[in-house]
Amino acid sequence: MTVRIAVVEDILSANDQLAAVNRARLGAAGVLGINLMASPGAGKTSLITRTVIALRDEYRIGAVDGDIATTLDADRIAALGVPAVQINTGGNCHLDAVMLQSALPRLPLDDMDLLIVENVGNLVCPASFDLGTHRNVLIASVPEGDDKPYKYPVMYRGVDALVLNKMDVISAFDFDVEYFRRGVEVLNPGLSFFPLSCKTGEGLTAWLDWLRKEIRDYVSGNPR
Amino acid sequence: MTVRIAVVEDILSANDQLAAVNRARLGAAGVLGINLMASPGAGKTSLITRTVIALRDEYRIGAVDGDIATTLDADRIAALGVPAVQINTGGNCHLDAVMLQSALPRLPLDDMDLLIVENVGNLVCPASFDLGTHRNVLIASVPEGDDKPYKYPVMYRGVDALVLNKMDVISAFDFDVEYFRRGVEVLNPGLSFFPLSCKTGEGLTAWLDWLRKEIRDYVSGNPR
Repeated sequence: MTVRIAVVEDILSANDQLAAVNRARLGAAGVLGINLMASPGAGKTSLITRTVIALRDEYRIGAVDGDIATTLDADRIAALGVPAVQINTGGNCHLDAVMLQSALPRLPLDDMDLLIVENVGNLVCPASFDLGTHRNVLIASVPEGDDKPYKYPVMYRGVDALVLNKMDVISAFDFDVEYFRRGVEVLNPGLSFFPLSCKTGEGLTAWLDWLRKEIRDYVSGNPR
Repeated sequence: MTVRIAVVEDILSANDQLAAVNRARLGAAGVLGINLMASPGAGKTSLITRTVIALRDEYRIGAVDGDIATTLDADRIAALGVPAVQINTGGNCHLDAVMLQSALPRLPLDDMDLLIVENVGNLVCPASFDLGTHRNVLIASVPEGDDKPYKYPVMYRGVDALVLNKMDVISAFDFDVEYFRRGVEVLNPGLSFFPLSCKTGEGLTAWLDWLRKEIRDYVSGNPR
């Protein structure tokens, strides 16, 4: 008799079960959860900072910041006057549903509309782990190069919106926006796409409008 | 009676055993192996391209390119007239000793002096897996930001040399080289450091001289 031990499948389904619990908890509090993913240094914390400053008078925002080490990111966001929790993964290359579960009780969910979760800087591992948030957003950045959709297809396939940051320096790089978009379009047709610069603020309005619409759709009982 | 099952330890030691086999194989052929690691888009393939062009008349060079998908990188390097093997990890976030083992028979090791292995673009996972190469090199890049040593300490601690690429655009970014270097110095005192630009060629000489010295030391029977 052969005994099959499906280890990976069991681990994923345990994570998925916990993710469903997290999602229900956010849902009960009426909080839209965003999972923000990117390479190291693409601008996750900068986009959160810009978003909080622009929307904090409209919505009650909280943040969870995942990092291998340090509380640098949560410190930057807490300095804006919104609740922020840092998760140090201690070497783990992505957040998972267990880590988010442990962070949620430290946030005033009943007094929040939007939770932004900043994942660990990594274009591979975070794509495979549902956290229990409602939308996945990827930040690419111009200096990384226009070939990234072709090289990291799983990440580009699994997201609901794509930000292309550092547009202010595009003239200094050989970045072909059309080549980049063609790669994205094959993997994720019709994906919402926001070229912008967190440094200059250029292009932020379209991103903020998308976020407003997602919150509105979610609150009106129309979550995807 | 309690039975302890040390799964992680066993996996690592299996990898380490295979890494030792790879290292012995490279050693028998007199080939110095370099494991090149970086974030996505920091410039791994660009540095290999620059290095091959500069050194191909002095040394016999081969390359192994690790990626989630595509053969874009190996194609770029093979176009320079040196043997290049692409490993597609199929979703795996790092190379390991098994993958390198499968690539080595496809290279003319006995007619090579230097093997450059380009790891998957990731600042976390590759740091934990010995491939059987002799030196670990990290490429950071200016647009990623000066806080990366603080956020990815394991990677910065485990390398033998550090390249800081894209110095040609430093004036467009808020990058404090002293803050960056202080972070590196705490983790890896005295680490060889090469600020350069693969685009303009600025700073490449010091990197190439370091590589020449490492090959010389290795060939003279003085591997670390």
